[in-house]
Amino acid sequence: MAKPIVGVMGPGEGASDQETRLAAEIGKLIASENWILLTGGRNVGVMEAASKGAQQAGGLVVGILPADNKDDASAFIDVPIRTGMGSARNNINVLSSDVIVACGNGAGTTSEIMLALKSQKPLILLHPSPTLVDFIGELSYPEPYVAETAERAISILKNIL
Amino acid sequence: MAKPIVGVMGPGEGASDQETRLAAEIGKLIASENWILLTGGRNVGVMEAASKGAQQAGGLVVGILPADNKDDASAFIDVPIRTGMGSARNNINVLSSDVIVACGNGAGTTSEIMLALKSQKPLILLHPSPTLVDFIGELSYPEPYVAETAERAISILKNIL
Amino acid sequence: MAKPIVGVMGPGEGASDQETRLAAEIGKLIASENWILLTGGRNVGVMEAASKGAQQAGGLVVGILPADNKDDASAFIDVPIRTGMGSARNNINVLSSDVIVACGNGAGTTSEIMLALKSQKPLILLHPSPTLVDFIGELSYPEPYVAETAERAISILKNIL
Amino acid sequence: MAKPIVGVMGPGEGASDQETRLAAEIGKLIASENWILLTGGRNVGVMEAASKGAQQAGGLVVGILPADNKDDASAFIDVPIRTGMGSARNNINVLSSDVIVACGNGAGTTSEIMLALKSQKPLILLHPSPTLVDFIGELSYPEPYVAETAERAISILKNIL
Repeated sequence: MAKPIVGVMGPGEGASDQETRLAAEIGKLIASENWILLTGGRNVGVMEAASKGAQQAGGLVVGILPADNKDDASAFIDVPIRTGMGSARNNINVLSSDVIVACGNGAGTTSEIMLALKSQKPLILLHPSPTLVDFIGELSYPEPYVAETAERAISILKNIL
Repeated sequence: MAKPIVGVMGPGEGASDQETRLAAEIGKLIASENWILLTGGRNVGVMEAASKGAQQAGGLVVGILPADNKDDASAFIDVPIRTGMGSARNNINVLSSDVIVACGNGAGTTSEIMLALKSQKPLILLHPSPTLVDFIGELSYPEPYVAETAERAISILKNIL
Repeated sequence: MAKPIVGVMGPGEGASDQETRLAAEIGKLIASENWILLTGGRNVGVMEAASKGAQQAGGLVVGILPADNKDDASAFIDVPIRTGMGSARNNINVLSSDVIVACGNGAGTTSEIMLALKSQKPLILLHPSPTLVDFIGELSYPEPYVAETAERAISILKNIL
Repeated sequence: MAKPIVGVMGPGEGASDQETRLAAEIGKLIASENWILLTGGRNVGVMEAASKGAQQAGGLVVGILPADNKDDASAFIDVPIRTGMGSARNNINVLSSDVIVACGNGAGTTSEIMLALKSQKPLILLHPSPTLVDFIGELSYPEPYVAETAERAISILKNIL
């Protein structure tokens, strides 16, 4: 049986300190559970922090890169998938994850949250903007989980996986 | 010189009556301006209404379909692009439009709004949810235009194109 | 009813003089039949020649670009679809065409011939390499049509469409 | 440092006994070298045989699936990437591999060979059709390696990686 794949989606260049700290924590905890971490693969922001946290804790890290090469790939990726399709790869991030954890607010991350809703994947919002939570409440989809800490996200994940 | 391509993005099955009415109007007005209409191509909701409005007014209509065939294509599409890539085609919708008009709220449409912000395309929100407008205000992007009527959207488009 | 879409696939930079001459002829003839021409959209080789031939004869030309912008688009494209997905767009070229005409030999063109076989689209090889024809004969697919002139390709197209 | 990724491309349903036997052998040998195996991910033909060979020898196996789910995934895949983009995923197979080994002749496999030439990735043809080798010789690309046995392919890979 393949191990579960947990996708952690979050901003690159625009990530806040709090977002990268949360990403590092959840990356580490995902690895501790022996789950596979999947990220957007780049060497910045949430992608970098989660990948580093997971790989340094001994986990397997998959990165779905927008580029067709590894130039901007995180050094903490074990499996760099080079899609060469830019932001269209966001849909692959979502489809390839068994559960999605959105960590941080940004346009790309929000597009992944929306694609996760559409694909009916389990979705956890980690410390989300209350305005985004309100907006999602207006849409006709099952409400995503909300977690304020990495530990809380992990305990939700344990119930799902 | 190629004619401008105006992408009208909106919900399929989940579209409200008001959204399809606005879509039909803006489709018609886009055709009257001799611009090309681009939609997500399916035969439901905003996609169908905008396509019908534009084609019946003599305009050229391009549909970027999620499927690899024309089974669910609107009958009012002149150029059915069959991508076979599901929601990953949302990024093609955005990239191929010179301006994006978002008509209605839905997860797929919101993903296209986010991809439009990321790609720095001019973006008009037609009768948007105030909550979504608030959320976009929290992101670090130039604010999109907001129009409450199809006529107002057209006058913004005239300034942009 | 939407007009038929004829995809003409062929090399860019590596196209021979004979290939671009054939492409110009078939582009023109496709337009004369009032069919839509679809190409890979770039401003070189077979793509450029076919697009120019068709547009100058009054036809509608759709280009499926590998890039996410129009920098390398042919000036003779009416509908520039910007995919931003590089050679993965070859599959969209094939799926979006009702019939495929392969004009010239090259790695990209041959990938499109192979995808056309896989998708079971009608396929015409225009002045193909005899070695490629032999190789296709080894595969388990219906044999494609072979035409040595643009006129012959058009008469095959008339029977198919 | 990430381990090298070796892509083994080959037919699904249409694979011959000899092709699946070669695929099983090379899968096993790739795992023995501690390289990552990448395949098209499905549970048939060369994809299944190579994945089984590698995983049973303790290797890590990545499958780039055409579907948006795991229904047709090989049970011997550790990382099932669900692209939802059909044959357009062939380009991701190629871009994500550091070296490509083509095992068997088929339309899909030949499309991957062509995309490998275009992307200038090192390419090994394992027991290829002589007609295909002749045709590739007509194209303007560096000649691919040819190996008649899995062992020979591995010794070429050792020189490349």
